Amino acid sequence: MGDAALPKPHILVAFYRNFSDSFLEEVRNKFPDAEVSSLTREPGDRIPKDVVQKATVIVTSRILPEPEDAKHIKFIHFFSAGLDTVIDDPILTDSTIPVTTSSGIHGPPIAEWTVLNWLVASRKYNITYEDQKKHRWGPGENYAHGIQDHVGKRLGILGYGSIGRQIARVAVALGITVYAYTASPKPTPESRRDPHYIVPGTGDRDGTLPTSWHHGTSKSALHEFLSLGLDHVVVSLPLTPQTTRIIGAEEFAVLAANKNPKHRNPYLTNISRGKVIDQDALIASLTSGELSGAALDVTDPEPLPENHPLWEAPNVQISPHISALSEEYFSRSFDIVRENLDRVNRGEKLVNEYTRGRGY
Amino acid sequence: MGDAALPKPHILVAFYRNFSDSFLEEVRNKFPDAEVSSLTREPGDRIPKDVVQKATVIVTSRILPEPEDAKHIKFIHFFSAGLDTVIDDPILTDSTIPVTTSSGIHGPPIAEWTVLNWLVASRKYNITYEDQKKHRWGPGENYAHGIQDHVGKRLGILGYGSIGRQIARVAVALGITVYAYTASPKPTPESRRDPHYIVPGTGDRDGTLPTSWHHGTSKSALHEFLSLGLDHVVVSLPLTPQTTRIIGAEEFAVLAANKNPKHRNPYLTNISRGKVIDQDALIASLTSGELSGAALDVTDPEPLPENHPLWEAPNVQISPHISALSEEYFSRSFDIVRENLDRVNRGEKLVNEYTRGRGY
Repeated sequence: MGDAALPKPHILVAFYRNFSDSFLEEVRNKFPDAEVSSLTREPGDRIPKDVVQKATVIVTSRILPEPEDAKHIKFIHFFSAGLDTVIDDPILTDSTIPVTTSSGIHGPPIAEWTVLNWLVASRKYNITYEDQKKHRWGPGENYAHGIQDHVGKRLGILGYGSIGRQIARVAVALGITVYAYTASPKPTPESRRDPHYIVPGTGDRDGTLPTSWHHGTSKSALHEFLSLGLDHVVVSLPLTPQTTRIIGAEEFAVLAANKNPKHRNPYLTNISRGKVIDQDALIASLTSGELSGAALDVTDPEPLPENHPLWEAPNVQISPHISALSEEYFSRSFDIVRENLDRVNRGEKLVNEYTRGRGY
Repeated sequence: MGDAALPKPHILVAFYRNFSDSFLEEVRNKFPDAEVSSLTREPGDRIPKDVVQKATVIVTSRILPEPEDAKHIKFIHFFSAGLDTVIDDPILTDSTIPVTTSSGIHGPPIAEWTVLNWLVASRKYNITYEDQKKHRWGPGENYAHGIQDHVGKRLGILGYGSIGRQIARVAVALGITVYAYTASPKPTPESRRDPHYIVPGTGDRDGTLPTSWHHGTSKSALHEFLSLGLDHVVVSLPLTPQTTRIIGAEEFAVLAANKNPKHRNPYLTNISRGKVIDQDALIASLTSGELSGAALDVTDPEPLPENHPLWEAPNVQISPHISALSEEYFSRSFDIVRENLDRVNRGEKLVNEYTRGRGY
């Protein structure tokens, strides 16, 4: 296993824009044991054969080699967490080159976006903001009534992946009780572990934060979960045929019927995809007050047209699919490459390796 | 110690407005072993002698008995955390009746207010909010640059009481490293414990969350603390002659000079009293960019006049001294009464007992 026996790895970064020199310098500092070169091409372009042949690892959005040029590549790392835009590329369909994703690095920014939205809603931040614009020291009565904090509240997380786990971590610190819901049963400690890359100091690696775990793919299993007296529901499911519009009028009714009578009505947070929610039903539930509010980073369609009624639904907070964004994004994605290069050197299984045929 | 041997306690609630019947019902449910009665008077009024004589515990804002009428009172509980408005009342100066405060219950709402403000600033929430008002799906570029999350950031907390401890709890969950600063040294585990009432499931009872503890009352000790490469400073000190304008131009300069070059400039949060900060120096530091922003729930004076320049300082977020408010406030204050009634019954030391002569 001596390093001297291994050829020096060559990391090729293929992206649709130029990274700054200072960022590439940071990447090179992360890989003192490797060469790092970069290539700028349009998304969907192929990497020229002579460029591929010098590389041992490719890091990219969706600028890929031809499979026959790439047999020597140790792994191809994607900046995205999902591979929906490249799922039909020959690299995925016609090769067995290991492919890794950036799954796991979205937890911190999306958890911060989520908690931001909960607190904006619960603490009436928009009143404070509008008052400040008018230089107005508003009356305490604006806040003494109608504000509850999060101690003793209940949060149900649909899809307990790396994002849900970091939300759980912050929620527990706020005094919230967390319930996890997954498609398949997770009865053992091993099944509850987070198998993905985890940003150090975040998340819930061992799955110990939820007070209880629930599972199923049937409507009745979902409704049983939504009957737990939840104050918050976070939708963090992948979009598949099975999850399309999985949350609609019936689910909102179940949530509201089982709410704690001393608390606000349930609050919905969607950080998955717009189509997971029946959006017309959501507008109706917000309008009737069945839901006390919703935070949506995703809508159907995107961008949401200017004249769409969702913009004006009561107590909705909409952002333009930006919850994952932060300056740390690419640096953290390269942390996964670093981890996997070490694993290749040690002959270990890669972290965040995509299982071909999973479909998302 | 059989309960049967004790006379039934009588809790007199003396306040300047009527509590709702439903709230009084909740209080009575909390004390099935006691009588509960209420009295509405103006702040500063004295409780009539015949009313005092039936009570064994008084719960109030600042409607107090004459000391000579109250020798039989087990304790007087105040809804406030500080006693500055009653510090010269004969009950405090001329009696030895135990007095307890609501210290400890402000942690959850003020921590939520604090984290709300950090996230509004760091995730550019005001842009999202203004875009939504215009039905505008803003470009991702608004967010891809300039947003950092809190993983790996450093927070210094000046005054590590129950509020600072709940802020620390949430901060650690966000991936932040916490440093505590107190006036007196806290070298032992016992000295680091939170002696006050703690809302269950919150705070840092054992003082284990800070990575390191620092102390002192000198400028050099404070500056050493502010040199730790802090991204956030939270001021959670009581206002005393020693803490008046303790944070000013020199302190902002020390913070900025020691910042992490890859991070934003330091951000100041004040949840104490306006006079703890040199407000003119704060405006100057925000204007120059030395501080990247500030969240202020308190100002000097209050209310802040409409024409005051602080309203328009860059990146400042001002709220009208409302960070502690939430619907849970009074219920939690009665939780302390509940705890202390149990302690009286068991012959134990009261929690949150005020030490006469402390001065705040």
